[in-house]
Amino acid sequence: MSDPTLELTEALMRRASVTPDDADCQSIMARRLANLGFHIEHLRFGEVDNLWARKGDSGPVLVFAGHTDVVPTGPVDRWHSDPFAPEIRDGHLYGRGAADMKASLAAFITATEAFLKDHPDHKGSIAYLITSDEEGPAHDGTVKVIETLAARNEKIDFCIVGEPTSSQQFGDMIKNGRRGSLSGHLIVHGVQGHIAYPHLAKNPIHSLAPALAELTVTEWDKGNAYFPPTTWQVSNMHSGTGATNVIPGTVEVLFNFRFSTENTADTLKAKLESILDKHGVEHEISWSLSGEPYLTGQGELVNSIQAAIQEETGITPELSTTGGTSDGRFIAKFCPQVVEFGPLNATIHKLNECVAVADLPKLAGVYRRVLEKLVA
Amino acid sequence: MSDPTLELTEALMRRASVTPDDADCQSIMARRLANLGFHIEHLRFGEVDNLWARKGDSGPVLVFAGHTDVVPTGPVDRWHSDPFAPEIRDGHLYGRGAADMKASLAAFITATEAFLKDHPDHKGSIAYLITSDEEGPAHDGTVKVIETLAARNEKIDFCIVGEPTSSQQFGDMIKNGRRGSLSGHLIVHGVQGHIAYPHLAKNPIHSLAPALAELTVTEWDKGNAYFPPTTWQVSNMHSGTGATNVIPGTVEVLFNFRFSTENTADTLKAKLESILDKHGVEHEISWSLSGEPYLTGQGELVNSIQAAIQEETGITPELSTTGGTSDGRFIAKFCPQVVEFGPLNATIHKLNECVAVADLPKLAGVYRRVLEKLVA
Repeated sequence: MSDPTLELTEALMRRASVTPDDADCQSIMARRLANLGFHIEHLRFGEVDNLWARKGDSGPVLVFAGHTDVVPTGPVDRWHSDPFAPEIRDGHLYGRGAADMKASLAAFITATEAFLKDHPDHKGSIAYLITSDEEGPAHDGTVKVIETLAARNEKIDFCIVGEPTSSQQFGDMIKNGRRGSLSGHLIVHGVQGHIAYPHLAKNPIHSLAPALAELTVTEWDKGNAYFPPTTWQVSNMHSGTGATNVIPGTVEVLFNFRFSTENTADTLKAKLESILDKHGVEHEISWSLSGEPYLTGQGELVNSIQAAIQEETGITPELSTTGGTSDGRFIAKFCPQVVEFGPLNATIHKLNECVAVADLPKLAGVYRRVLEKLVA
Repeated sequence: MSDPTLELTEALMRRASVTPDDADCQSIMARRLANLGFHIEHLRFGEVDNLWARKGDSGPVLVFAGHTDVVPTGPVDRWHSDPFAPEIRDGHLYGRGAADMKASLAAFITATEAFLKDHPDHKGSIAYLITSDEEGPAHDGTVKVIETLAARNEKIDFCIVGEPTSSQQFGDMIKNGRRGSLSGHLIVHGVQGHIAYPHLAKNPIHSLAPALAELTVTEWDKGNAYFPPTTWQVSNMHSGTGATNVIPGTVEVLFNFRFSTENTADTLKAKLESILDKHGVEHEISWSLSGEPYLTGQGELVNSIQAAIQEETGITPELSTTGGTSDGRFIAKFCPQVVEFGPLNATIHKLNECVAVADLPKLAGVYRRVLEKLVA
């Protein structure tokens, strides 16, 4: 007998739901949830489909969050099988979205179905927050759904985001937070001139150099129990007229902080500005905050999912806050406890993305055990 | 009665001798010199016309050096008069090449004519080294003539280059040397990677930063009595893929030294490399030497021209080695005493280039007085 999580994963993978196209994945999920008695809301913002589904009126509210959209395939002829025709080879299910994150979406559903079969009169509420724009600009997805919930004062208590977080083996890692990401566009002003007369010019590269050297060795924080130390990196730096005998008038630097909860966007901005000012660097900066860091410390949700993974797999998962940003950052502003857990992430966004077939029932098992611990 | 130097300057300016086109300027000069008994040699290398003319067989040999070529006019409609139709307005002669350096060429000739009238049986030799490629690549100009003279073991003792060296008023500055110019193209190697995982990448901008900071504050030398301190300037610096989430794999830096006789190209290369190595900067550099510095210290030629200017104008000229490179650097390898002297340089290479009409006979007077001091 086939595994129901595998079957639903395959059904979702047959939909070429490249961001922001949901390609009816949410309809498939909504039908299954409606059959379970969920109240279904399709929330479309701009060109993005979102699904909010809820069963129960009381607290605590446990939310499964995720996205139906997938990243583009890249060159299809370099895939070993059609990225939107799921195929099992050597124990792995191949196709775009297998790991990121249609397996998790399917496991949410089958876990919920199994749980409700055993616990028709469970306490609290179970809900789904599903978007079709997590891989894209993410303006009309999760953030808008959260705003909608906040506007009607609908509270949520726990959220499990189905991002693929396992690293070396299934169950070895949970993300209980994410670093913040803050970008800056720095322009340093000098005075252009002939390279033979530097006293009549002001070289902005030279003005910046001591500050740049200090910025590269600055310890922004030491991190903490959950976060690695904050990092600062330059991604792009450009200066010069092309002519080799001209001192340039400006230099442009793009940089990015990945930061822990030991700092905020504002503390980092102030520290960086103070270093530039200390060295007398005449400059302007425009800032762009992709997300403040979030953290869910040891508590009911983390304990439950750690125990669920331990029971299901025998593995004790590590708590981690590494990696890029996720929709968890939007949910964490509204929900006190957010964790991310899903299958191995080794192949995500790559050619021949896959998920181990054997991990699918285990994934559903973990989610089901969390339901039992929190809303049984 | 019109001034003969003005007349000849105008005649040369009517020739649109944009580099490397001599436009028969050298023929005009050669005819005047042949009339004085000079032996004329037209030395054409590639597409560059050069003139070597000499009167006398004995030493000392005093050479007048210069160029007939001029830089392009730029937008002609922004000139107040045709750049190749010399026009006098408000006591100034306007047109391309007026100051750089057809006035000097004309003054060489009229000074020589006046001198020979008074001193038909002068001692030593008078020679002319005239090229039509000083403003361009300068590969087939002065350097080739010098090689020709060296190959036949023809020695020269004194050389006056007619570059416009006066700064605020006529006669206020002599160049008795020029700084060297050494350029470098530096590539620093790192390891490209995702900006969220800097420990898996190596940011070449960060690797370079401490060395860059040190290079900008390094005292390469203190200069000396004749030279300002050596300077180092970055002209161009580029790094980055354009993406804001990628640590770049390389950074490219173009820089230039203007250097005194307290350093050589080799000592500067070694010092810069040692700073990069001290900071462990993985790099490669390609070097380009435009010219080693040259210097003519206080001596017979400098004393003569200083005295000539003082007698002609009442001004004591300053000795200077500032500014860009000139053909003096090629001549100095072959001739022990080289100085540069000519009219005001405020308008050279600009729109509405001009020379003060009143300065033309003074310029010829200075050159004539030098002839009298050295070969009368």
